[in-house]
Amino acid sequence: MIGLDQIRELVSPTPSKIVLLVIDGLGGLPHPETGRTELENAKTPNLDRLAREGICGMIDPVGSGITSGSAPGHLALFGYDPLTFIVGRGMLEALGIDFELKAGDVAARGNFCTIDGSGLITDRRAGRLSTQRCSELCQLLDGMNMEGVAILVSPVREHRFVAVFRGEGFLSALGDSDPQREGLSPRDVIAHSPRAEKAASIANEFIAQSRATLADHYPANMVLLRGFAHYPDFPKMSEVFSLKPAAIAPYPMYRGLAKVVGMEVLPTGATVEEQLSAVAEHYNSYDFFFLHVKETDIAGEDGDFARKVMVIEEVDRALPRLIDLDPDVIIVTADHSTPAVLKGHSWHPVPFLLCSKLCRPDGVVEFSERDCVSGALGRFPATDVMPLALANALKLKKFGA
Amino acid sequence: MIGLDQIRELVSPTPSKIVLLVIDGLGGLPHPETGRTELENAKTPNLDRLAREGICGMIDPVGSGITSGSAPGHLALFGYDPLTFIVGRGMLEALGIDFELKAGDVAARGNFCTIDGSGLITDRRAGRLSTQRCSELCQLLDGMNMEGVAILVSPVREHRFVAVFRGEGFLSALGDSDPQREGLSPRDVIAHSPRAEKAASIANEFIAQSRATLADHYPANMVLLRGFAHYPDFPKMSEVFSLKPAAIAPYPMYRGLAKVVGMEVLPTGATVEEQLSAVAEHYNSYDFFFLHVKETDIAGEDGDFARKVMVIEEVDRALPRLIDLDPDVIIVTADHSTPAVLKGHSWHPVPFLLCSKLCRPDGVVEFSERDCVSGALGRFPATDVMPLALANALKLKKFGA
Repeated sequence: MIGLDQIRELVSPTPSKIVLLVIDGLGGLPHPETGRTELENAKTPNLDRLAREGICGMIDPVGSGITSGSAPGHLALFGYDPLTFIVGRGMLEALGIDFELKAGDVAARGNFCTIDGSGLITDRRAGRLSTQRCSELCQLLDGMNMEGVAILVSPVREHRFVAVFRGEGFLSALGDSDPQREGLSPRDVIAHSPRAEKAASIANEFIAQSRATLADHYPANMVLLRGFAHYPDFPKMSEVFSLKPAAIAPYPMYRGLAKVVGMEVLPTGATVEEQLSAVAEHYNSYDFFFLHVKETDIAGEDGDFARKVMVIEEVDRALPRLIDLDPDVIIVTADHSTPAVLKGHSWHPVPFLLCSKLCRPDGVVEFSERDCVSGALGRFPATDVMPLALANALKLKKFGA
Repeated sequence: MIGLDQIRELVSPTPSKIVLLVIDGLGGLPHPETGRTELENAKTPNLDRLAREGICGMIDPVGSGITSGSAPGHLALFGYDPLTFIVGRGMLEALGIDFELKAGDVAARGNFCTIDGSGLITDRRAGRLSTQRCSELCQLLDGMNMEGVAILVSPVREHRFVAVFRGEGFLSALGDSDPQREGLSPRDVIAHSPRAEKAASIANEFIAQSRATLADHYPANMVLLRGFAHYPDFPKMSEVFSLKPAAIAPYPMYRGLAKVVGMEVLPTGATVEEQLSAVAEHYNSYDFFFLHVKETDIAGEDGDFARKVMVIEEVDRALPRLIDLDPDVIIVTADHSTPAVLKGHSWHPVPFLLCSKLCRPDGVVEFSERDCVSGALGRFPATDVMPLALANALKLKKFGA
């Protein structure tokens, strides 16, 4: 497989424009009654037109049989091998709440929990306290400073929070304090390398001070930390692809992932219409636009087949505005499948379409799982999407002579 | 992917014969008026018959979205991963003029250029002198000898020449003297490793002596060198595939690439008919024949859709002679696409057919981009072609037990 370093040598900037529309969790499974997937059920005249004029295929986000999370699924679409470019759990939690992260930050997922008099965990979720209460408690813990490391504590939802450790030399090579079981004591955070000893002692001191602060706040009288992860130091899309990329994503997690690869995050409303307005408004300032639609995935996770169909149709209705902008390359696909019948992400390959004047169209006339299988792109890894997009936008030079 | 070392363990020689017919740049794009590619436009009853009796697919020479040069495209077809087996620019230039290269040779691309009184480059191409004049000047520089290294200078075209450095310990880890811009002085050739210091000083001495020799030959009063590259030390096809391979290629570059992988180069005329005569004449002496047709690529580069169609039809008309020889495996494909509408190489996958008695035929009835997409081989990397050829020729043993 060609790597980022090789692509970097081949790419040259051009005025041509690429739009990557990710309909999260788009891939589905047949409804038991009709035998048709969500996408096959939806009326999608505009997607069908793009499929007819374009070239189609099926992509594997991570690999055959592998159910992809949102982060690896997106990183693959952005051209970053998700088996190499890993975003740790604590960092994903921080990205998911739009936390203003800086290079060098280390984030951990936190739980408020309940311990008894002898220090054993009796409830890992402190009775699932309200998000409101979580916010109040986070304020009590937020802003400690130890040996030049600031600790920033932000609520996520119910008992969950994020702790961000910011300061010189705080390494993420740390074990969890959360033993993941009740009836045990919280663990000391241990260093996985000698250089992380200082970080471990700071993390343990933070936990001790938090315990002291929370003493009177039963049932939330202790914290558990896990998934220490550093802010990813990935090469930026501007460096490897010579692109000026922009992200138009209403959900924090996807904005965060976009920032990690160096996209500019543009302000946008929540609807597809509003996202397309943002594209139109900034069309001349960027040459790569990542648009993210979340509601298909949510409907899939909820097992709501009909709603997923509706959201797909809503996206389709908005498409003419995008097509009218006449970008050189339009790609429509997803980060993974989320079949309503499975109520969750799945391993099934994802329908893919690319429309450009140079794409060598195939015989696909409908954008659906069934038809994309016979598309001329065949089945291919999601990491091939970016080279394909760049090629169709005439941004890649010849390899060798 | 299975590597050469693994293939080597599996292969055993047999009398069976393989013919690889490369129709350079065969893959195309639809003509704007007809919607049909060059190959789809051409009347090709014999290719269609092979497609019907054989098995088809689409190959990627280097990778998705990557536009392959001729060298990587051919190396991939010969079974050599083009991301690993690199032929440097200077060496390609030498191969392209049929220069008699030896193991250990280092070649650089040369330009005659013009410098002014203060040594600054005023014209990197010395007014694009004639090829005739280039030849005369090359004779003035040819045959210098320094510290046991002979320097052989041969004309290419217009202002371009090749300098071959032949002698013990001349390494190619050298920088360019060509600054690639006018208004600058030529650079000193620098060594990229301490062991290349001697080579750098010889190269600089060659440049200095050339300058002295050319002093009265304004505008060609200086030389520029770039792309120092050593003769590739690749494993030979006889070693890795236990084949006795022959190349029948009228163009120097392809003969050169064939030699690099250890093929015997057979004399041939320029037409497909004459190439097939050469196959017939030497049929009993070899078990692998590489035939190369260049004119499709030239027509594609020229943007001449109709001529590319004509050349394809000409190849098709000659095919019965090949089929009558009844080789065990016939493969027809290309090193890359060269769509006439793009006037250059492109990233589009290449139609592929393999015909053998054991190939498990698919439903493809016409040799075309459109039909090959639905071929049973699907879309696959060009480096898989050789293992497939060897298997169909019953030259590969079982892997494992």
